[in-house]
Amino acid sequence: MDPLTGRIVLGPNRYGKAENRVVRIYRDTVRHEIRDLNVTSSLRGDFEAAHTAGDQRAVLPTDSQKQTIFAYAATHSGGSVEDYGLALARHFVDDIGPVSSARIEIEDFPWERVGDHPYTWTRTGPEVRTAAITVTGAGDTRREWVVAGLKDLVVLKSTGSGFAGFLEDPFTVLEPTDDRVLATSLVARWRYADTAAAWDRTYAGVREVMLDRFAALQSKALQQTLFEMGRAVLEAFPYLAEIRLQAPNKHHFLFDLDRFGIPNRGEVFHADDRPYGLMHVTVQREDAPDAGSAWDEYTGAA
Amino acid sequence: MDPLTGRIVLGPNRYGKAENRVVRIYRDTVRHEIRDLNVTSSLRGDFEAAHTAGDQRAVLPTDSQKQTIFAYAATHSGGSVEDYGLALARHFVDDIGPVSSARIEIEDFPWERVGDHPYTWTRTGPEVRTAAITVTGAGDTRREWVVAGLKDLVVLKSTGSGFAGFLEDPFTVLEPTDDRVLATSLVARWRYADTAAAWDRTYAGVREVMLDRFAALQSKALQQTLFEMGRAVLEAFPYLAEIRLQAPNKHHFLFDLDRFGIPNRGEVFHADDRPYGLMHVTVQREDAPDAGSAWDEYTGAA
Amino acid sequence: MDPLTGRIVLGPNRYGKAENRVVRIYRDTVRHEIRDLNVTSSLRGDFEAAHTAGDQRAVLPTDSQKQTIFAYAATHSGGSVEDYGLALARHFVDDIGPVSSARIEIEDFPWERVGDHPYTWTRTGPEVRTAAITVTGAGDTRREWVVAGLKDLVVLKSTGSGFAGFLEDPFTVLEPTDDRVLATSLVARWRYADTAAAWDRTYAGVREVMLDRFAALQSKALQQTLFEMGRAVLEAFPYLAEIRLQAPNKHHFLFDLDRFGIPNRGEVFHADDRPYGLMHVTVQREDAPDAGSAWDEYTGAA
Amino acid sequence: MDPLTGRIVLGPNRYGKAENRVVRIYRDTVRHEIRDLNVTSSLRGDFEAAHTAGDQRAVLPTDSQKQTIFAYAATHSGGSVEDYGLALARHFVDDIGPVSSARIEIEDFPWERVGDHPYTWTRTGPEVRTAAITVTGAGDTRREWVVAGLKDLVVLKSTGSGFAGFLEDPFTVLEPTDDRVLATSLVARWRYADTAAAWDRTYAGVREVMLDRFAALQSKALQQTLFEMGRAVLEAFPYLAEIRLQAPNKHHFLFDLDRFGIPNRGEVFHADDRPYGLMHVTVQREDAPDAGSAWDEYTGAA
Repeated sequence: MDPLTGRIVLGPNRYGKAENRVVRIYRDTVRHEIRDLNVTSSLRGDFEAAHTAGDQRAVLPTDSQKQTIFAYAATHSGGSVEDYGLALARHFVDDIGPVSSARIEIEDFPWERVGDHPYTWTRTGPEVRTAAITVTGAGDTRREWVVAGLKDLVVLKSTGSGFAGFLEDPFTVLEPTDDRVLATSLVARWRYADTAAAWDRTYAGVREVMLDRFAALQSKALQQTLFEMGRAVLEAFPYLAEIRLQAPNKHHFLFDLDRFGIPNRGEVFHADDRPYGLMHVTVQREDAPDAGSAWDEYTGAA
Repeated sequence: MDPLTGRIVLGPNRYGKAENRVVRIYRDTVRHEIRDLNVTSSLRGDFEAAHTAGDQRAVLPTDSQKQTIFAYAATHSGGSVEDYGLALARHFVDDIGPVSSARIEIEDFPWERVGDHPYTWTRTGPEVRTAAITVTGAGDTRREWVVAGLKDLVVLKSTGSGFAGFLEDPFTVLEPTDDRVLATSLVARWRYADTAAAWDRTYAGVREVMLDRFAALQSKALQQTLFEMGRAVLEAFPYLAEIRLQAPNKHHFLFDLDRFGIPNRGEVFHADDRPYGLMHVTVQREDAPDAGSAWDEYTGAA
Repeated sequence: MDPLTGRIVLGPNRYGKAENRVVRIYRDTVRHEIRDLNVTSSLRGDFEAAHTAGDQRAVLPTDSQKQTIFAYAATHSGGSVEDYGLALARHFVDDIGPVSSARIEIEDFPWERVGDHPYTWTRTGPEVRTAAITVTGAGDTRREWVVAGLKDLVVLKSTGSGFAGFLEDPFTVLEPTDDRVLATSLVARWRYADTAAAWDRTYAGVREVMLDRFAALQSKALQQTLFEMGRAVLEAFPYLAEIRLQAPNKHHFLFDLDRFGIPNRGEVFHADDRPYGLMHVTVQREDAPDAGSAWDEYTGAA
Repeated sequence: MDPLTGRIVLGPNRYGKAENRVVRIYRDTVRHEIRDLNVTSSLRGDFEAAHTAGDQRAVLPTDSQKQTIFAYAATHSGGSVEDYGLALARHFVDDIGPVSSARIEIEDFPWERVGDHPYTWTRTGPEVRTAAITVTGAGDTRREWVVAGLKDLVVLKSTGSGFAGFLEDPFTVLEPTDDRVLATSLVARWRYADTAAAWDRTYAGVREVMLDRFAALQSKALQQTLFEMGRAVLEAFPYLAEIRLQAPNKHHFLFDLDRFGIPNRGEVFHADDRPYGLMHVTVQREDAPDAGSAWDEYTGAA
């Protein structure tokens, strides 16, 4: 091919402060509450001179973003993480001149009270609640998106799952099965059609619907299971525009004990690490508002 | 110093198969049960020729150890992980000629039923139950030790903790405090004085006693808290010989918001990663039987 | 807002086999060669029935994809990882009916010969070479993209870096500096304008140009440094359409030793973990061919 | 068994500050040098009252230990990490009254200059240099031990390794082989018979001897290879008392391509994650001084 000769220019860019580990204790009464967060900010805007000339006049330091994140944990701590993220994102877009778009990504680690003790907890998990808030523009062009979710929700069913009737090519050696272990570590993210919803109640509800569906459905494949989980969520929550599910197929291989004369009727498995099937499924409504920058990840690998 | 001139010889050695990921499903009734384990074997014995001459005649392959670990998951699955570990360790010592000592280390990952579904679960945690079984010798010299424990039990109290009156040296800049966040990720391991105990009930009981004590005690330091947790455990379970606690002091630093005119009365903290205080405390009974090889770790860093 | 009432449908989806750990030994001569890879496949196509009806007739099992990945390591191992990825992606699109698009993501772990030994190596790193090949369509609509890159390239300069003249808001407490440590763990990915380039030579060249530029440039900010590194790469390699750089600002804080009467003129630093600044910068040519699906990550967090 | 009734008492205990991330820049000349460390302190002594009564009067805060670690990076930075560790350990034992024993564990991360640039480096690895210094007692009872080492040294040979003639039991299904891939991620630690040695030169020398031996020896088993590596080290360095090697057998399984009609003569392997063989081998001199507390790990799992 001919060499490219076009001008070399700055393309899409953004910057922020990643992984601020904010712990907020509510101690207005004898019975404390805790919120344990990992908060990341990301800003877009007119930062061309910073890149091409090293001119920082439009650049709010990432340290200032950190200070803001901690300060807002004190001053804007009344609601859910989605509200906190919206407050932060709106602040950056509205109050910092060169910023045209802000994204706040939050991990919210769950804790459980020890007995009914007023100020002692243990971490639960491994699942983590997530939120990603994006705010762009001002006035008529203002847009806001809230994506909530969870990750590392590890689920397993020991029966009620098969995989058969698949396409076979010359490299296909897999045997069909009508009874296998189905397990995954779920990442789910749902986009709200609105920016004022019952965040906490929806979180709990989506989680419950997904688990119920995973448990109840006779699975013909992980893809079908994921789609049905997503469909059930959208049916239950009419203010959700779409849901995206990402799930490894955590393979559990029946261990061959026949050679030792030991029967193994779906009882002893080797939980393998790698490789693993990996599924991405989106379930959406045909009348959903457009997604804009809602899915424009910042702290992901990309 | 003078150079050493002594003969170069084989010193202590052992080998095994580490991290066999065994998942055992109990499906004799409609309501299944699950056990999710990470099992490691380690053997000592007369393996000199294998090291010094490459002669494998006394060496049971680690692959055979793996096969055994999975086979015993089918044939010796009736009790707790401690029983399973004892069965494996006894087998290696009793049935494999050159083996004089066997150690089985197990991680037992907790799962929780989805609702009351008969065959669907979610992983809980982050805490993990552990067991380490050591069997040595035969006949009159036979000895057996069971150490059980947990790790990654993350606990936090938002008040009821201080640290003051400490030794000061020229490098001391820390200010004393009478109210701080106290948090740790606990590793606890307790040694049984016997090899036939109510393993599961003791596990649940030790966990509960430790958490209750952590919550209730006004802490003057993490060391005192750990000692009192250990003491309470030994008081509650008279068949435990000792307990060892290892705990990082997961520092939560009050974030300075004064400079922004925002009060911060123990509400907004930065959860720091490194460095961290690290405490090791042993609590023991004066009449405990000797520990022998009970604490001789295999899969640790050493 | 009004509840959404639109039909619930399947949205974008894909599936594959992730993290196949392929080690390829070339032993045709006494002097062996090694290639150590982590290979992931991802397929898009007509998989609607699999999701909505559990009908697998169009679904090539991920196990078959794994078999293919290992088989092609034998049969298509002559060139660079980019060629291997292209062969795999073309195979899935051309030979598997329902597949309309395939993406192959590869991590290529570097090894270094021990002395000049013919068949012994040590792993080097931490940096990892990466490649992502995307093939879509057939006939006139066929498109192919190659993105190559590296990750975990940790670089540090102990002077020659400042940060000053930045925007200040009420939360700004950072002091400007004209001499600091600048360190990052670089992720760089460059998109080829062609699908037949000197892959290995370009990889080595891009790496060298980036490091030279990082070292030589007096840095006014990490953003400027990244842009200049990217610009230098595009200038040197006219067949690259764009380069994307992602870089944490790994903060090194001067440790306060003044209070002990010990001078610290840029000599003793605390390397902090979190939070960290995080920068994303794209440098591109104005006449670059369009990126299409080239950046459509599969194994990332999103 | 009868319940234990003995008094419950404090057993072995220690505490310190773990994972201080110290980066030391030497900038006395235009050509800088860098040392990048992870430093942990651990103290033993008369801390009974701190545990049993919450009395901190004998307790030097872990924060003070951190300050000291950073201060000594400025004031005692002339030699190798072993010298720095000795200075720290001696300080804690000699200058802090209640301390009877101190241990300093250090990870030393390697960096490589970019070209010959005076102040720019890239991290190399994955291997990490380690040191563990223990000082106990005063006057006539003073003892000092230095253990140096490395970890995460990943080595592989693609031939020159077999495994045959092993013990077979009813669970043995492994086939003997005379040609396999042998790979491990080595942890090696050697104990000096002295506390004044050519630390850096010895480190480089031990590493070289181990790699040369790994490469040259026709391996009959990993255990034999490890023993011979250790023996070669002790032969080459007569001031080393012993060496301990810990090594996973990183299994590379030949991938079955026969079923596709593709020959695979030791060319395509699956690099498996778990389980793995795990070997611990000690090689020692018969006239070595006693090891005392030298191997008493602090930051390990135990």
